[in-house]
Amino acid sequence: MSDWPGDPIEQLVGLLARLPGLGRRSARRAALKMLMQPDRVMLPLAAALQAAAAAVQPCRICGNLDTRNPCGICRDPQRDRGLICVVEGVAELWALERAHAHRGLYHVLGGTLSALGGVGPEDLAVQPLLARIAGAGEAERVEEVILALPATVDGATTAHYLSDRLVGSGVRVTRLAQGVPMGGALDVLDEGTLAAALKARRDL
Amino acid sequence: MSDWPGDPIEQLVGLLARLPGLGRRSARRAALKMLMQPDRVMLPLAAALQAAAAAVQPCRICGNLDTRNPCGICRDPQRDRGLICVVEGVAELWALERAHAHRGLYHVLGGTLSALGGVGPEDLAVQPLLARIAGAGEAERVEEVILALPATVDGATTAHYLSDRLVGSGVRVTRLAQGVPMGGALDVLDEGTLAAALKARRDL
Repeated sequence: MSDWPGDPIEQLVGLLARLPGLGRRSARRAALKMLMQPDRVMLPLAAALQAAAAAVQPCRICGNLDTRNPCGICRDPQRDRGLICVVEGVAELWALERAHAHRGLYHVLGGTLSALGGVGPEDLAVQPLLARIAGAGEAERVEEVILALPATVDGATTAHYLSDRLVGSGVRVTRLAQGVPMGGALDVLDEGTLAAALKARRDL
Repeated sequence: MSDWPGDPIEQLVGLLARLPGLGRRSARRAALKMLMQPDRVMLPLAAALQAAAAAVQPCRICGNLDTRNPCGICRDPQRDRGLICVVEGVAELWALERAHAHRGLYHVLGGTLSALGGVGPEDLAVQPLLARIAGAGEAERVEEVILALPATVDGATTAHYLSDRLVGSGVRVTRLAQGVPMGGALDVLDEGTLAAALKARRDL
């Protein structure tokens, strides 16, 4: 190992350590593993990074990241264009897609309102959402907006704000159900979730 | 997110997921973070990977990975050439270098002997080590070999094997001390370590 700055190994470790989930220690392990077999992982990864950086961009309609613009979801004729699911970020959009549970379109807000964090409506894609709903043609009229926002104070604030802004638009506004997660053991669940699950109980 | 194979995003996630310490979930998070700011992390990382793959190679003397061959440590005139520290892999070499505790040279074995894993002496850099000791000139005579091998059954087997092979070479063979790690709470330490630490106790 060499200690002078500009050393390719140290530079690689430094960049890997910036990725979420990798600390300096695991970045070093990852670099080492790659250095042992440069052709199998290292050069393909370099090529993949360049290809993705060149090809991927935010969708101008919904904010999803994709190689096409509008993105594959917005272009998909099978999707219900009357149903828009509002999410905080692209990570949440991808998670919902993996669940194969939503057959409509999406709208990426780019965050949630936060008084403490100084995030106001003008910092989020609120105006584009309203414009999208107002501007939809007769055939593509938006019937329902599903607010799939985090179950946090900021998420709830954002949901209330959006629901206020949508009053009078004729659009139905819904939010995700709260309750016990699949496979979740009751004794490790927080009280808030338990209370919400009990309150929203359903007949068998 | 798109599902067709050959999609740049999926390809990038797949390659990132092969790194140690990154599962598929964290690979996706890392890819997403990079895609949000391609110029700050993605393209520099691609360049660093290519630079390191092109520049880094195993040292022909000790087996360390470096941009120079022989490596920076083997070239360093300040290093004690009479002292060789034998390590399992480059990761261990780097860890010892970070500790700034060894002022001699290294020798990377490339593993440990393992009856179960089918690893014999011919699979490790044993012969190069013996040749290195036998071939050293008068001025660079090897005085001591420190076996810095893991405190496992395979590590101990390897240490015994090497120490046998070095009998009669006139070289002093030592191994790392075993005991309580710095800051280690006694109640969570395994019994083997505790017994070893007690046996190797020293006067204050």
